[in-house]
Amino acid sequence: KTPSSLTKQGITRWVVVFFIGVCTALIACTIDICVVEITKLKYGFLKKYIDKCVTENCLYMPYLLWLGISCGFAFIASVLVTYGEPVAAGSGIPLVKCYLNGINVHRLHRLKTLFVKAAGVTCSVLGGLAVGKEGPMVHSGAAVAAGLSQGKSTSLGFDFGILKEFRCDQEKRDFVTGGAAAGVAAAFGAPIGGVLFSLEEGSSFWNQNMTWRIFFCSMVSAFTLNVVLSAYHGQIGQLAYDGLLNFGKFPDIPFTLLELPIFIGMGIIGGLIGALFNQMNYHISVFRRRFIVSRWAKVLEVIVVCCVTVTAGFVMIYCVNDCKPLGPKDDIDFPIQMFCEDGQFNAVAAMWFQTPEASVRALFHDQPGTHNPLSVGLFFITYVFLACWTYGLSISSGIFIPALLSGAAWGRLVGLGLYRLTEGAAWADPGKYALIGAASQLGGIARVTLSLAVILIETTGNLSLGLGLMLTLLTAKLVGDCFNAGIYDMNVQLAGLPMLPWSSPPLCYGTQARDIMSKPVVVLREVERVSTVLSVLEETRHQGFPLIFENRFSGSQGNQNSFGMLRGLILRSQLKILLKEKAFCSSPTGSASQPPVSLETFRMYYPRYPTFQGMHFTEEERSSYLDLRPYLNPTPYTVPMHASLPRTFQLFRALGLRHLIVTDDNNEVVGMITRKTLARYRARICCGTIDFVELPLGGHGVQL
Amino acid sequence: KTPSSLTKQGITRWVVVFFIGVCTALIACTIDICVVEITKLKYGFLKKYIDKCVTENCLYMPYLLWLGISCGFAFIASVLVTYGEPVAAGSGIPLVKCYLNGINVHRLHRLKTLFVKAAGVTCSVLGGLAVGKEGPMVHSGAAVAAGLSQGKSTSLGFDFGILKEFRCDQEKRDFVTGGAAAGVAAAFGAPIGGVLFSLEEGSSFWNQNMTWRIFFCSMVSAFTLNVVLSAYHGQIGQLAYDGLLNFGKFPDIPFTLLELPIFIGMGIIGGLIGALFNQMNYHISVFRRRFIVSRWAKVLEVIVVCCVTVTAGFVMIYCVNDCKPLGPKDDIDFPIQMFCEDGQFNAVAAMWFQTPEASVRALFHDQPGTHNPLSVGLFFITYVFLACWTYGLSISSGIFIPALLSGAAWGRLVGLGLYRLTEGAAWADPGKYALIGAASQLGGIARVTLSLAVILIETTGNLSLGLGLMLTLLTAKLVGDCFNAGIYDMNVQLAGLPMLPWSSPPLCYGTQARDIMSKPVVVLREVERVSTVLSVLEETRHQGFPLIFENRFSGSQGNQNSFGMLRGLILRSQLKILLKEKAFCSSPTGSASQPPVSLETFRMYYPRYPTFQGMHFTEEERSSYLDLRPYLNPTPYTVPMHASLPRTFQLFRALGLRHLIVTDDNNEVVGMITRKTLARYRARICCGTIDFVELPLGGHGVQL
Repeated sequence: KTPSSLTKQGITRWVVVFFIGVCTALIACTIDICVVEITKLKYGFLKKYIDKCVTENCLYMPYLLWLGISCGFAFIASVLVTYGEPVAAGSGIPLVKCYLNGINVHRLHRLKTLFVKAAGVTCSVLGGLAVGKEGPMVHSGAAVAAGLSQGKSTSLGFDFGILKEFRCDQEKRDFVTGGAAAGVAAAFGAPIGGVLFSLEEGSSFWNQNMTWRIFFCSMVSAFTLNVVLSAYHGQIGQLAYDGLLNFGKFPDIPFTLLELPIFIGMGIIGGLIGALFNQMNYHISVFRRRFIVSRWAKVLEVIVVCCVTVTAGFVMIYCVNDCKPLGPKDDIDFPIQMFCEDGQFNAVAAMWFQTPEASVRALFHDQPGTHNPLSVGLFFITYVFLACWTYGLSISSGIFIPALLSGAAWGRLVGLGLYRLTEGAAWADPGKYALIGAASQLGGIARVTLSLAVILIETTGNLSLGLGLMLTLLTAKLVGDCFNAGIYDMNVQLAGLPMLPWSSPPLCYGTQARDIMSKPVVVLREVERVSTVLSVLEETRHQGFPLIFENRFSGSQGNQNSFGMLRGLILRSQLKILLKEKAFCSSPTGSASQPPVSLETFRMYYPRYPTFQGMHFTEEERSSYLDLRPYLNPTPYTVPMHASLPRTFQLFRALGLRHLIVTDDNNEVVGMITRKTLARYRARICCGTIDFVELPLGGHGVQL
Repeated sequence: KTPSSLTKQGITRWVVVFFIGVCTALIACTIDICVVEITKLKYGFLKKYIDKCVTENCLYMPYLLWLGISCGFAFIASVLVTYGEPVAAGSGIPLVKCYLNGINVHRLHRLKTLFVKAAGVTCSVLGGLAVGKEGPMVHSGAAVAAGLSQGKSTSLGFDFGILKEFRCDQEKRDFVTGGAAAGVAAAFGAPIGGVLFSLEEGSSFWNQNMTWRIFFCSMVSAFTLNVVLSAYHGQIGQLAYDGLLNFGKFPDIPFTLLELPIFIGMGIIGGLIGALFNQMNYHISVFRRRFIVSRWAKVLEVIVVCCVTVTAGFVMIYCVNDCKPLGPKDDIDFPIQMFCEDGQFNAVAAMWFQTPEASVRALFHDQPGTHNPLSVGLFFITYVFLACWTYGLSISSGIFIPALLSGAAWGRLVGLGLYRLTEGAAWADPGKYALIGAASQLGGIARVTLSLAVILIETTGNLSLGLGLMLTLLTAKLVGDCFNAGIYDMNVQLAGLPMLPWSSPPLCYGTQARDIMSKPVVVLREVERVSTVLSVLEETRHQGFPLIFENRFSGSQGNQNSFGMLRGLILRSQLKILLKEKAFCSSPTGSASQPPVSLETFRMYYPRYPTFQGMHFTEEERSSYLDLRPYLNPTPYTVPMHASLPRTFQLFRALGLRHLIVTDDNNEVVGMITRKTLARYRARICCGTIDFVELPLGGHGVQL
């Protein structure tokens, strides 16, 4: 490497990040526009039938039609995920979080996953399910970043031969952090919110340079989104056009000191509802894991949920006769008259006959008289229940929008109450309280604070309520945290993924590395027989193997627990590549003449290493030797056996390690500590008591 | 420790953070209100004289008065800092950054420093110098945090006996991060900007929980500020009142795709001017360090700068006859008529006869016709020169506002040019371009991007230009980085502080730990003679000493370079306390009967450890022993001697270490690596070449 190649590499990094931003935004635009256009077709078609059938008394027909169309989309969404790529299920944010924590989530960033995620979420939203498209967009951004930054696609089987210097975990992780930020920026049009979300929720490591690149990525993504959508809205090039704001432009909203208790109160309610939501969802997920195992059952469940959703909507529209006059200011796409008089429309139908995002917008901005408190209340209960059941289905689905929508519903109820109490005081704006309620609910479910405040500020184009939003969100988070974890962390725990928390469990200063380390340790020698290596690789699933000096027990004392004096560390992936490349030598002392496997070759295989299935070795090869000395890491991270758990944990966490060798005073190997070992010990302190939880870890389609 | 004590500790942390936010905001409010009120008195008084003297032809009198008043304030500001507390000079942000990087900056957080900083910056602004009060407010916030979180004040000599659990570097650092954020939040009324500034510029370590507390601190600070200032403005309790925005409310500003090249162009100009500014300031600082050494010379320089500033202002007002009609919409406090006709005022005088902050507001919001391009241009040149000379004087002074003001000046020029070219097109708003120019200039000087974008968004209450600001800031930063470092980093380097960069210098994979380590290593035995400990402490300045096993050379081989087998590590501060407490024993094997010094005692001394001046030891005490075994850290971080520099660096940086023991294969001590060792190696890559710089490090009043 030369200085100029470093400069080139630095510039390349910015260029790659630029394209990540652009591509992520383009994918998001495509999803957005598809959803809006097809939704229009769907509900336009249904409206025609309903309008006709109300008079002709054939309402079962539009109901069946609605059911059919929705289930059709839901079926596609579910089949894509269930049979196509199960890792694309759910919002994807928990998995991206795990990846950034240092876990190698299998198939997370494949091109196929990206496709299934994007097409899947379009279909789920079109199916009318209680899902959002924002979480999947974050995952899409991450996948785009992982793909673009490697300059090759193993799925498509080609390699551009560029960007080889970024083919390692650390570089890739930095790009993925940027991609996730770009995803948020594209999903909400919130570039700063994107950066903050990536930092608050995703990132496990922190670096100023990385932050600037994330920021750039997020900004490019927002620019691209604005350029495309401003053209779509017929305002070409107007990058600050109000219509680009996802949740509609809020005018300046004043608020006074006296409202702060109300905000705090709403934060508490949101925290409580959120905790209850998470708890319910946890039980549903546990049930699902136990009883809904086969693929067809998963698809069936999606269809059932879809039917229930449509039926609930239809019953509400049919039963609740909430008629409002159709004013010129209402921008309702498909006002359904139902049993209302001429010139009026059914306000409940308006809530169901649009995307969830449009419903959020309606609750934020409709005039105080538009919604009947009873119908909003009913809608809230129905929707929160549906959202809770839906999240975790075998479809690509986000939780952001459903949470915001149900929160906006109860928030608006609070606002309507205040409006009536104060007889229409200027500060008691139901729209404002809908926004606070939405924030509070999502804060209680996802336990996101800073970034969510910024996202809501950016999507409503309003800064003046910022402090109110922050207060509500922090309250909701703190209240929720008293009961359980956020929904993303809960998902991670359920999946048994060994995500490391931010700090070691409390009160464990007495625990030492030797108390938790795994032994016996599988060690290899510097020059090892091929047959030994093969059997070690076949019999264990360890990812790293300590190498020891030839004379197995060095020193004078000969510690009984020792596995030999540490020489270095070799990775499973390296061994696999060496076997594949047949870099063998015949003599047990190694041979210098052997041409070594180059760094290029190692990079070529990244990140999908060869498997044993295709390898065959002759008897002669099996009895020859592998000289590991050119490839071993001579100074792996080690920890003394007497080190406390917090110190071990800190080393592991700060450096993002996957395995750590435990040594005794003589630098001899006595044990190994892996990510799983550490992730297993978790504690939750609440209200003066402490629970130590030993997590059942283990791969659900996840390679560790 | 019990679970309930942990819960209590968690709650205490939030409570402490709350009070940090409140106190920081109160200090900021006090400074703010003092500055505004006394400025009014000052310029009101001067206006009276000028108005009288223009007709009576005695203009030398108001000039001398102006000179006198300004120099009086500047004198106080300078004496306070120079004779009172030199560490309070400058903006304080570089030092806070160093502290958060892990450097123990002496006297940085004393009560006296806080007082000098706050009173000093008030006086410097009142002296009419080209300074801002924002940087010092950040430092004040940090000092408040460090003070409040420890529950004691050594300056005042009392100890509340509370918060003892927070008396350690790591906890204190987390609070200081929060305090810095609260400082920004209070300085600009920008809570999100505060968090981001703390994360982007300050923080060296990253933790989700810490982020939430910083966020809370920042929010509380902004709330307190709004409550106090809304009362001051006569709008009690109106927390979203527009008048609270520092730089005035911007209405929604549209911008189109076609303006992006202009923004990028302005970013490039800002980056260039910023780089030039930094370079000039660097040379001035070097000159100052060499020739302006004595205290009186420092005070004298401040007086000189103050005289030049006032004279420049007066000459401009006298010579440039830029008369504008006094409209009803202009909110100029003291319109000076000078030689203008009745009903008109001198537009140049209006720029000088107010705080720099008010001038920024004027350039952002005045009508297109208010300012004459020539006078704005002249003002820019004068001001940028003055700001460059002023920054680094021995006064408490920030760079934010001067940079924004000079940027706003040239930005407005660009805007005026576009306005004339397009004959008054709606998009060519000079105010908008003044904002972009201000951002670009500050971005070029301080190289802050994300947080500055957010701060400007929050202080103008306008989101729609967000993307434009981001683009300009990133461009300015990238362009500036091609030439030199940001002004804060430059300051740190000049002061010779061993701040560790984010990553190791490039192209140093070949360098090993043993190449850079310091040796011989001063080691101690587990039970050491008091006289030995004393002489070691007196003869060296090391902060940590490796302990070795009694049998100095263990093992069979007896490595010549080894200083003994590693037993643990003891800190200088621990040794000092043990000596002070006279925890001696008479036998060289130690004694179990000796009552050990408790953790409580160690905490009591934190962070000011005893010095030798007060300690006297009898001959008998000198020949007795210190049993270090109960206090030593048995598992200090070590690195193998063959480890590469990047790996050593990463370990050091990620864990925030101050010293690292280098061991050989047998776990014997062969060297030590300190922060200074690593900070010395720096490299700057630019345009295909690489400079390796070996920094001259060493304390300028800084204890390492």
